[in-house]
Amino acid sequence: MALIPTREDKFSFGLWTVGWQARDLFGEATRPVLAGVEAVHKLTELGAYGITFHDDDLIPPGSSTAERDRIVAEFKQALADTGMVVPMATTNLFGDPVFKDGGFTSNDRSVRRYALRKVMRNMDLAAELGAEIYVFWGGREGSEVDFAKDVRSALDRYREGIDLLAQYSIDKGYGMRFAIEPKPNEPRGDILLPTIGHALAFISQLEHADMVGINPETGHEQMASLNYTHGIAQALWQDKLFHIDLNGQKGPRYDQDMVFGYGDLLQAFSTVDLLENGAPGGSPTYNGDRHFDYKPLRTEDMDGVWESALANMELYLELRERSKAFRASPKVQEALAASEVAELAQPTLNKDETWEMLLSDEAAYEGFDRDAAATRGYGFARIQRLAVEHLLGVSSD
Amino acid sequence: MALIPTREDKFSFGLWTVGWQARDLFGEATRPVLAGVEAVHKLTELGAYGITFHDDDLIPPGSSTAERDRIVAEFKQALADTGMVVPMATTNLFGDPVFKDGGFTSNDRSVRRYALRKVMRNMDLAAELGAEIYVFWGGREGSEVDFAKDVRSALDRYREGIDLLAQYSIDKGYGMRFAIEPKPNEPRGDILLPTIGHALAFISQLEHADMVGINPETGHEQMASLNYTHGIAQALWQDKLFHIDLNGQKGPRYDQDMVFGYGDLLQAFSTVDLLENGAPGGSPTYNGDRHFDYKPLRTEDMDGVWESALANMELYLELRERSKAFRASPKVQEALAASEVAELAQPTLNKDETWEMLLSDEAAYEGFDRDAAATRGYGFARIQRLAVEHLLGVSSD
Amino acid sequence: MALIPTREDKFSFGLWTVGWQARDLFGEATRPVLAGVEAVHKLTELGAYGITFHDDDLIPPGSSTAERDRIVAEFKQALADTGMVVPMATTNLFGDPVFKDGGFTSNDRSVRRYALRKVMRNMDLAAELGAEIYVFWGGREGSEVDFAKDVRSALDRYREGIDLLAQYSIDKGYGMRFAIEPKPNEPRGDILLPTIGHALAFISQLEHADMVGINPETGHEQMASLNYTHGIAQALWQDKLFHIDLNGQKGPRYDQDMVFGYGDLLQAFSTVDLLENGAPGGSPTYNGDRHFDYKPLRTEDMDGVWESALANMELYLELRERSKAFRASPKVQEALAASEVAELAQPTLNKDETWEMLLSDEAAYEGFDRDAAATRGYGFARIQRLAVEHLLGVSSD
Amino acid sequence: MALIPTREDKFSFGLWTVGWQARDLFGEATRPVLAGVEAVHKLTELGAYGITFHDDDLIPPGSSTAERDRIVAEFKQALADTGMVVPMATTNLFGDPVFKDGGFTSNDRSVRRYALRKVMRNMDLAAELGAEIYVFWGGREGSEVDFAKDVRSALDRYREGIDLLAQYSIDKGYGMRFAIEPKPNEPRGDILLPTIGHALAFISQLEHADMVGINPETGHEQMASLNYTHGIAQALWQDKLFHIDLNGQKGPRYDQDMVFGYGDLLQAFSTVDLLENGAPGGSPTYNGDRHFDYKPLRTEDMDGVWESALANMELYLELRERSKAFRASPKVQEALAASEVAELAQPTLNKDETWEMLLSDEAAYEGFDRDAAATRGYGFARIQRLAVEHLLGVSSD
Repeated sequence: MALIPTREDKFSFGLWTVGWQARDLFGEATRPVLAGVEAVHKLTELGAYGITFHDDDLIPPGSSTAERDRIVAEFKQALADTGMVVPMATTNLFGDPVFKDGGFTSNDRSVRRYALRKVMRNMDLAAELGAEIYVFWGGREGSEVDFAKDVRSALDRYREGIDLLAQYSIDKGYGMRFAIEPKPNEPRGDILLPTIGHALAFISQLEHADMVGINPETGHEQMASLNYTHGIAQALWQDKLFHIDLNGQKGPRYDQDMVFGYGDLLQAFSTVDLLENGAPGGSPTYNGDRHFDYKPLRTEDMDGVWESALANMELYLELRERSKAFRASPKVQEALAASEVAELAQPTLNKDETWEMLLSDEAAYEGFDRDAAATRGYGFARIQRLAVEHLLGVSSD
Repeated sequence: MALIPTREDKFSFGLWTVGWQARDLFGEATRPVLAGVEAVHKLTELGAYGITFHDDDLIPPGSSTAERDRIVAEFKQALADTGMVVPMATTNLFGDPVFKDGGFTSNDRSVRRYALRKVMRNMDLAAELGAEIYVFWGGREGSEVDFAKDVRSALDRYREGIDLLAQYSIDKGYGMRFAIEPKPNEPRGDILLPTIGHALAFISQLEHADMVGINPETGHEQMASLNYTHGIAQALWQDKLFHIDLNGQKGPRYDQDMVFGYGDLLQAFSTVDLLENGAPGGSPTYNGDRHFDYKPLRTEDMDGVWESALANMELYLELRERSKAFRASPKVQEALAASEVAELAQPTLNKDETWEMLLSDEAAYEGFDRDAAATRGYGFARIQRLAVEHLLGVSSD
Repeated sequence: MALIPTREDKFSFGLWTVGWQARDLFGEATRPVLAGVEAVHKLTELGAYGITFHDDDLIPPGSSTAERDRIVAEFKQALADTGMVVPMATTNLFGDPVFKDGGFTSNDRSVRRYALRKVMRNMDLAAELGAEIYVFWGGREGSEVDFAKDVRSALDRYREGIDLLAQYSIDKGYGMRFAIEPKPNEPRGDILLPTIGHALAFISQLEHADMVGINPETGHEQMASLNYTHGIAQALWQDKLFHIDLNGQKGPRYDQDMVFGYGDLLQAFSTVDLLENGAPGGSPTYNGDRHFDYKPLRTEDMDGVWESALANMELYLELRERSKAFRASPKVQEALAASEVAELAQPTLNKDETWEMLLSDEAAYEGFDRDAAATRGYGFARIQRLAVEHLLGVSSD
Repeated sequence: MALIPTREDKFSFGLWTVGWQARDLFGEATRPVLAGVEAVHKLTELGAYGITFHDDDLIPPGSSTAERDRIVAEFKQALADTGMVVPMATTNLFGDPVFKDGGFTSNDRSVRRYALRKVMRNMDLAAELGAEIYVFWGGREGSEVDFAKDVRSALDRYREGIDLLAQYSIDKGYGMRFAIEPKPNEPRGDILLPTIGHALAFISQLEHADMVGINPETGHEQMASLNYTHGIAQALWQDKLFHIDLNGQKGPRYDQDMVFGYGDLLQAFSTVDLLENGAPGGSPTYNGDRHFDYKPLRTEDMDGVWESALANMELYLELRERSKAFRASPKVQEALAASEVAELAQPTLNKDETWEMLLSDEAAYEGFDRDAAATRGYGFARIQRLAVEHLLGVSSD
């Protein structure tokens, strides 16, 4: 495609994405280890601006202090050399067998305490590298056996963990904001905080609710048959879209982590439209990095890895450009007006109207023209048709 | 089955359940109209204690005031004659074509105002009949075309509507509590507040959040591949399980509304266990009516309708009895202890422990026995096996 | 869009699609009755070439013979006036309550006999109108209760029915070919012949297997998480793609019947590519009418109906044009060659090679270069990226 | 439970099931290697009768000939010592990175040839160990990129491979029957032969169709929202149920491989009922080993592994016993008769009836009592209620 990603576009990738060796449940790795330093250089070259990591991605578990120091120093040098930033970091609380029943919510208290310490340790590194967002994906917090997990106690422990770590960030002056990443299932049969909604609800119960938001992933919501664009809209409505994981998924099945847009392309278009243009007549709704959390196909060598990394960014740019054209089109504006899309921003009640006043407004009920309301067309078919035309680049205005 | 439902079990049914005429998207009605009065008498006879309704179930749309008055009077008389109560009522904001783009969130403001009035009108009747819970299922609040619905404005309008109606209840002294019923899709392509989580999150933003909870339906959560027992546990954790809709569903597909337990029977067992027994060593977590929201199979005549209504109650009772035996079993208690299920109620931190103290506790990290934690068995397979034995009634203690 | 549908494109619509009054399980009709004659004229105007029908779409159940004759005469006149053809017809064996347990496989033998007669009657009309394909969608053939349906006997009866009707077509000289339409569920809990595969397998057991193929619908396969393009490829492989139903669906959920391409747009592109271009270096694989089986959104009036009808055709044309450009692109050809896509047409065995010869070929096993095979990249990421570029119209060659 | 598995019950397990080390996509192994010999002894002790394996389960890839010989000898000794049999064997064509684009259908011809050789090699061992069934699960035969796989050529290659290997078995006098195992997706985005139906259809195209059947797995069908009991019924109808893989799954999501019955317990009951009792008034429909293909939970140590292995067998036995009681119950027999379940075995046509005779039978159409057929109840609710009572062991007769 013609559009070239640049630093200004704020694209970022997890080190574990391009670095995935393609070992899956049924087969061995097909690709070599990718060093963090190489990832930094290569991603910079492709036009990305940021890189993110789990502690164990960057520093192999079991590394000595000296090895750790060397790895961190080299990584920092690579960042300095390229200007690449670390907008976000996170903890691996799922790979080590000790977390097989979860980290913050394991039935084993010693595991819970260990998990907190593991997070604190990596928060120090994250702060050192400048990360402003710290993500919590509790992929092992859950159960397969309903009778073996007291979910209310688990949520107590989850809250306790997040609040303690929030206090840690505050006291250490790290200034981080936390972002919880929901997922419905896999690797656990059922994962706690399975959707954007559950995570937002959980956050409302935290002591430090103000500094905690969410990091929703396209595919995770779609695994639950949910509309990702609607989900991030609700997060925005609650001022909680702190970070974002973009990728692709074909509905309820295993977590596919495809390139952004390769799952539900039309919904990817509406996602970009919401992020970049907001409400009708609006403006960008999200200012953080556009973070891709995908897995390059297992059939690919490193050329295929970089090809697919680029594909994420290019497609995002293309959708952004087309969403701008969509919004700018007179035909579209006319169609949106006919469908009263912006009208919904107008309160249902008149200014200072009480229920008593509504009750006495005969036009609202007794005089309501039911026939007109029942037979009117909303014009949504037209908006969809125009959106598809703009997505395909065949709009006539 | 041996167990006979009684009033004390607090079973209730929607008038629209046993009264469903079995008209579906592809075919005509197979059963006659069932009068509300007849439903009251027949359900009483079967052992139910309550009946619930949408305005349009009880009173056919377009009825004159006289007809309406007659229907209500007869219905009240039937309640008086049988002792049956109306624990909950709700509004039909989905059947009339005027609501094709929603009620509270229609792009058409006149529809939104009409919807509020329709609710107020039925709240008056609900109050007159003694309903303490008023349910909101916004089945038409949603969209098929992402570009045609401003979700943030829609949530503003949703909040505006609920808050206004809460004020109405307060001012009128109705003392009702509201319960929002989530659903992911059908009849809209995507429905707003699609899961328990999204509804809980929405409620946290309300002016009258304290009087609003949720009415989760088994099948609606399972349509999104979510664990219903986990969902109601989170609702309980937030003190928001105000009402409950029990039925059966086979995963993500059309809304089946089967008899409770006929979808995921094992999960139905854990649901009853949570409702009736709560946490390990606990007590009932929900005291409202056990409300069935199901559709008798379209192949059935009225005998089949009543057979299936009874089946809901009997199965619930059987699961309740078996959950009690499960909890009382010494083997189970031993297994739960071995799996440390109750241990999770213990805080991860010691009393008054700060992060500084955790950080300096070498046992938590440096001395953590990773090998032991990695290789220990959690014993969940045993708990599941015991649960299945109790469900089937073949436990050996 | 710029592309204008014409008769040569062979687009057709079910009378029940544009004629759907938008009555669904939860709400009343939002649109008026559409006369068949009007549909013929309007679809002609939009560029369609064919119209299809169920007996009950064209002739309201309960019509007198005189009414029926009048309707048929007017419909034929409209066809004559416009040149529109009837490429396919089918029977409604699902709407009438008598079919609540199925038509050919109802447990009630008198219903089964009635169903056969209803089909024969409409086959006469279909033949009179020139239909060459007769479709069988057995939406009520199935069950919700596994213990209440003997599936093997049901398949016996299904076979008996199809074979009898095939004989009828032969003896009457109708020259029709039959096409079975699979669907996994809805309106029955589970439908017999739920996927393309099950229908193909069933056909292999028929006496008149040669004249029976399938009519796969995009959304029906996707409701079962299946790849529609793969499915029709298997049908083509077995020479059984007799007809096709194009529409859109968002994975496992209720049957959405959206506009073609509005569900999984990328897969719609590969579907059109397969139909129009076949294998690498190939040619069209399907010559019948491109039939749309969709439901215009319930929010729309008749303007929206025609807008969405046109949207189906335009999007198909756009995808066809872009699939041609994709295939013609030198970059794409190079990428397909690098991925050895066409190589798969080469037999695995050499000409006349036996297993003994393969066993003695050391290059095949002992000398097989596992390292090379394990580390090579297949270049699929590149093909996907090029396909998306062509879909969006931003290819650079 | 009271029921104790014995050899006569013909239960078998894959070596890869109890031997699964619980390494998943997100985490490392939690259990030690389990030697084949130990598995044989322990499974014998629990009451199993057979063990099955992939080549690479038994013999670690890369083993020298001497190691291989030693392992095989020890395994045979264990079989001899215990009397355990090997009813089935299969090939691992998915773990080695060389198979990343499939075995029989890889775009790389050298991989296809290698795959055939790998199978032949293990067929020799399987024959030596007495396996009568050889299973083909083509988990890597598929694609993520529609444009990169020519599905028709892939099916040609699949057929070529299966037919060659069938010839090999014939010529070597192995007397094996082949069983294809379908799966819709995971680890590939879409797998070829995704369901029972697709596999049966494929088999109809084989040269050696008579010696090839299917090995359907409970969870694989349910991942596609399909009814497993219906699926095996169609396979039985086509005489193609050659082997069976029993486990548990909660609908469309990642492949869970739970204990049999832990997914959809009611459907597990109907599965056992069909296998053990067949049609109404019938007899067993399947005589092979009852093979469990499950994964012990990752949270468990070896005690949990054996606990869950036993749970599979016990639950099967319990369901078998209860299905016998269900069939023997006078109440059930009466209900089945009222629902005309057995009536479906009666042909729709009278003996020697032609379409002409049906057409002239006025009772079939003109005199058909539509009202009676429309309003009759089928009594399926009653059958389901009785089935649930028998499942729970609370039947009153």
